[in-house]
Amino acid sequence: MYRSHNCGELTAANINEEVTLAGWVQKTRNKGFLVWTDLRDRYGVTQLIFDEERTDKKVFELAETLGREFVIQVKGTVIERESKNPNMPTGDIEILAKELTILNTSIVPPFTIENETDGGEDLRMKYRYLDIRRNPVKNSLMFRHKVGIAVRNYLSEKGFIEVETPVLIKSTPEGARDFVVPSRMNEGQFYALPQSPQTFKQLLMVGGIDKYFQIVKCFRDEDLRADRQPEFTQIDCEMAFVDQEDIIQTFEGLTKHLLKELKDVEMGDFPRMTYDEAMRKYGNDKPDIRFGMEFGELNEVAQHKDFGVFNNSELVVGIAVPGAAAYTRKEIDKLIDWVKRPQIGATGMVYVKYNEDGSLKSSVDKFYDEEDLKKWAEATNAQPGDLILILSGETNKTRARMSALRMEMAERLELRKPDEFAPLWVIDFPLLEWDEETERYHAMHHPFTSPKKEDMHLLDTDPGKVRATAYDLVLNGNEIGGGSIRIHDRKTQELMFKHLGFTEEEAKAQFGFLMDAFQYGAPPHGGLAFGFDRLVAILGGQETIRDFIAFPKNNSGRDVMIDAPSTIDNEQLKELHIALNLEV
Amino acid sequence: MYRSHNCGELTAANINEEVTLAGWVQKTRNKGFLVWTDLRDRYGVTQLIFDEERTDKKVFELAETLGREFVIQVKGTVIERESKNPNMPTGDIEILAKELTILNTSIVPPFTIENETDGGEDLRMKYRYLDIRRNPVKNSLMFRHKVGIAVRNYLSEKGFIEVETPVLIKSTPEGARDFVVPSRMNEGQFYALPQSPQTFKQLLMVGGIDKYFQIVKCFRDEDLRADRQPEFTQIDCEMAFVDQEDIIQTFEGLTKHLLKELKDVEMGDFPRMTYDEAMRKYGNDKPDIRFGMEFGELNEVAQHKDFGVFNNSELVVGIAVPGAAAYTRKEIDKLIDWVKRPQIGATGMVYVKYNEDGSLKSSVDKFYDEEDLKKWAEATNAQPGDLILILSGETNKTRARMSALRMEMAERLELRKPDEFAPLWVIDFPLLEWDEETERYHAMHHPFTSPKKEDMHLLDTDPGKVRATAYDLVLNGNEIGGGSIRIHDRKTQELMFKHLGFTEEEAKAQFGFLMDAFQYGAPPHGGLAFGFDRLVAILGGQETIRDFIAFPKNNSGRDVMIDAPSTIDNEQLKELHIALNLEV
Repeated sequence: MYRSHNCGELTAANINEEVTLAGWVQKTRNKGFLVWTDLRDRYGVTQLIFDEERTDKKVFELAETLGREFVIQVKGTVIERESKNPNMPTGDIEILAKELTILNTSIVPPFTIENETDGGEDLRMKYRYLDIRRNPVKNSLMFRHKVGIAVRNYLSEKGFIEVETPVLIKSTPEGARDFVVPSRMNEGQFYALPQSPQTFKQLLMVGGIDKYFQIVKCFRDEDLRADRQPEFTQIDCEMAFVDQEDIIQTFEGLTKHLLKELKDVEMGDFPRMTYDEAMRKYGNDKPDIRFGMEFGELNEVAQHKDFGVFNNSELVVGIAVPGAAAYTRKEIDKLIDWVKRPQIGATGMVYVKYNEDGSLKSSVDKFYDEEDLKKWAEATNAQPGDLILILSGETNKTRARMSALRMEMAERLELRKPDEFAPLWVIDFPLLEWDEETERYHAMHHPFTSPKKEDMHLLDTDPGKVRATAYDLVLNGNEIGGGSIRIHDRKTQELMFKHLGFTEEEAKAQFGFLMDAFQYGAPPHGGLAFGFDRLVAILGGQETIRDFIAFPKNNSGRDVMIDAPSTIDNEQLKELHIALNLEV
Repeated sequence: MYRSHNCGELTAANINEEVTLAGWVQKTRNKGFLVWTDLRDRYGVTQLIFDEERTDKKVFELAETLGREFVIQVKGTVIERESKNPNMPTGDIEILAKELTILNTSIVPPFTIENETDGGEDLRMKYRYLDIRRNPVKNSLMFRHKVGIAVRNYLSEKGFIEVETPVLIKSTPEGARDFVVPSRMNEGQFYALPQSPQTFKQLLMVGGIDKYFQIVKCFRDEDLRADRQPEFTQIDCEMAFVDQEDIIQTFEGLTKHLLKELKDVEMGDFPRMTYDEAMRKYGNDKPDIRFGMEFGELNEVAQHKDFGVFNNSELVVGIAVPGAAAYTRKEIDKLIDWVKRPQIGATGMVYVKYNEDGSLKSSVDKFYDEEDLKKWAEATNAQPGDLILILSGETNKTRARMSALRMEMAERLELRKPDEFAPLWVIDFPLLEWDEETERYHAMHHPFTSPKKEDMHLLDTDPGKVRATAYDLVLNGNEIGGGSIRIHDRKTQELMFKHLGFTEEEAKAQFGFLMDAFQYGAPPHGGLAFGFDRLVAILGGQETIRDFIAFPKNNSGRDVMIDAPSTIDNEQLKELHIALNLEV
């Protein structure tokens, strides 16, 4: 036993007790005859005092040698502090040290171990073990643990069983790129790491495990956009003998439970919105509905005059930015520059100031009169004092641009409040989406998603119009979960593969085991997977996942702390029946 | 909602209720005017009755078409059963069917879905999703889930945090073979899958997370012995500011909790035994102490006569097999054949019958008198009625053979009772073991294990004698957990690598990050990992792990259900900067 108490628990109630603490030296102040040391561990900070008069000389001298991040053990007496610190749980007391043992020394750390550190991202990642000592990272990891426990206990109490599915599985070209693992014992063959346990959880349903979940690592070898990781964690769930409503109720229940348990937020029923409505109102299938600025479509009230830009556009759409009518010309010009950036790609932007006095002033007054502008204000639900921003062009692109603008304005106006939670179900997703590059339809979710029965007849005639029994759970503008009712009969599954451009042989080679399984009494089933990293980050009030992952990788997929990946030796390559094939 | 109740919950209390059930047809009996169907789901079996007189004609005719493993939905009334079945929870009632929907048909399954199936191992694995419908497998998976929840909640309540460590890490030649993953984005480089999160959990200790655990997949590319899997699950744990005693107390607490919670078994304190004692008394570092048959060393009482076999042996050792004095000559000859099998490798065996009447009769009466044999009986703690079996030869080999014989006799005498639990801590393991093949010392646990301070001086002079602060938790003859106090300073770690034959460069390239971390205030720490698959199996009263894993691989590392590993296409190989290198 290295300690009798931790550094976060001693209070005035412990005065006069003899205690032993162990931890890290946060900082030390030497007044010549007094040395104060802040001792830190996972639980908090406690002040130690070494007093020339009351502390043994050898101990005092040793205390004078302590440096930042030394690991020490101290025995002493809890005494009342002269100048109390009401901001610290242990601020009423200090430890008058009697014995001191240096358990380990430390060289000077490359950045300060403080809530606000002077260390940049790269340095923090290289010395992640020091970064984890900082409260923001440590607390994020502890929060993640709490969410995990809450999820597991909730689902377990609802009769779900956590089943571990294999990590070494089979490569399938559908979807993102697989990470593969050469097999030593099966020459010339490879395992793949799962992008999700999709087929295994479906097989568990065929196997009669009617409520399954797993908090599980998944893998995608994709070029990493910001805040994406090659390995990530899902809360993977599946149920049998259920329809979409059962699944929505179950996981809405889980999400409410997490919000209550971890954030003390009570939520009513979550709103639902079709994919079409989300695209029309927010230009986005994961809208942030913590704030308004819903799209107003202006085609009817803006295409009757001589303004060619609007007349030649498939869509004219506006949003009313609350209280922004006072923007200066310069500020608005900057906004126009912002939407013209290549990342957004607009060619221009029209604006209308809806002044506090009720007057309207636009950048297209040459073409439109106040009556017209009033109608625009109505369509965008603008109030006096708002600034209406209008984009036009091809529908999908214009919606995407307007969505980006809406989010940007919300950021600027601080409408995306981290302690406010706005969940939303987006339902009725399209089954297929057209891929320009390969010139064929791809499954929008995955090839196991069931089309809506009433849309099945469109599969041959108008595949893009077929809706899926698929749903996403959106929280604060992030997709935190998504799933679908699955196909559970061989015939429909074969039909789906055909529509996705699989030959019969390909479908059989890759998913024959699943279609075989469907012949032996597969029950109706469906499920959902939460992105655990993101769920935890959003519940934690943050948008980036990195500090909720203990040892994240950088944008090149590297772990800069352990320096992985790395080369392996020729002997190892040979055993695995592979050779390097480097570009010259 | 496909069902109002499940198939395991309806009793006499529900009589006259209208219910909807869904599940699989277990079997069906057609009496012409009555059809009985056993409907099965995860929760149990409920009998359905279709009655020509009381059931709609169409429904009755549809019921006559039902085959084994059809998935159906039935609406009907709960009625009292005429011939009750007291062996079934639902045995008092049946459902008089009113509506029947066939949700999916089934072709005839390749084996029966019964507790005792007619399916062989290979067939069961190929159709694992059908195998999982069987109670023994389903119940094993549900039991595993329960153990997992119990472990997590216990450790969480004790202040442990579950932290996910990365799966894509760095290959290190130490230990077993790594599975590797070629990196597309880092040409010519590879990740490795972790054999354990060892270094990461130590870095978490350096990071101040002083109580860590994780239930985590680990990977070893080894030639698979029976009951080993290339991917397996550990309960991985680590603590800082602790000594061996703290760790033993903590995880003994966990194990007691599991035994109480899952098996309703109250355990006192676990016995402890040094490695040396375990080897001397049981010839084994994971002795099954549910039964006796401790070794009696006989050198002193057997090497004073003219029997050259014993006189030339380093060790003469015996065990007393309880109640086996009545074995016939033929039975004993068979035992002698058994120890001579190449897997055991003895050249012969001496026996002494300690008859019920107190007389002693041996196979070496030519050399030894009754006084001698009495001493042997004393040394092996034999009682009248026992059979003493004696092996001799080189110490280590003889102990291993005698250990195998002891276990075999225990099996035959049914002394290895699955519902009896005998935990044991084995402590004071040697730090190093000599490897004949490479002619150097290897770390018995791993290179991060701390030598005992008092033995440090032997490192140079007699490395094999240095004891480690390492401990195993043994349950019923299986190592279910093992761990150690770790080295936490750079100097000792460097010394250890040197003794293990690492050059300075090798040590730095592979474990430089860890030794760097030790310079920034690493606290004293240690831990333990449980083999989760085996722990669950033993708690479940079984010796083999396969039915506690949802989708196990076979002895060639293949998943025969999904047919993995498999070939991948050339495009994929090229992207990964590798080529096949097949033997001709």
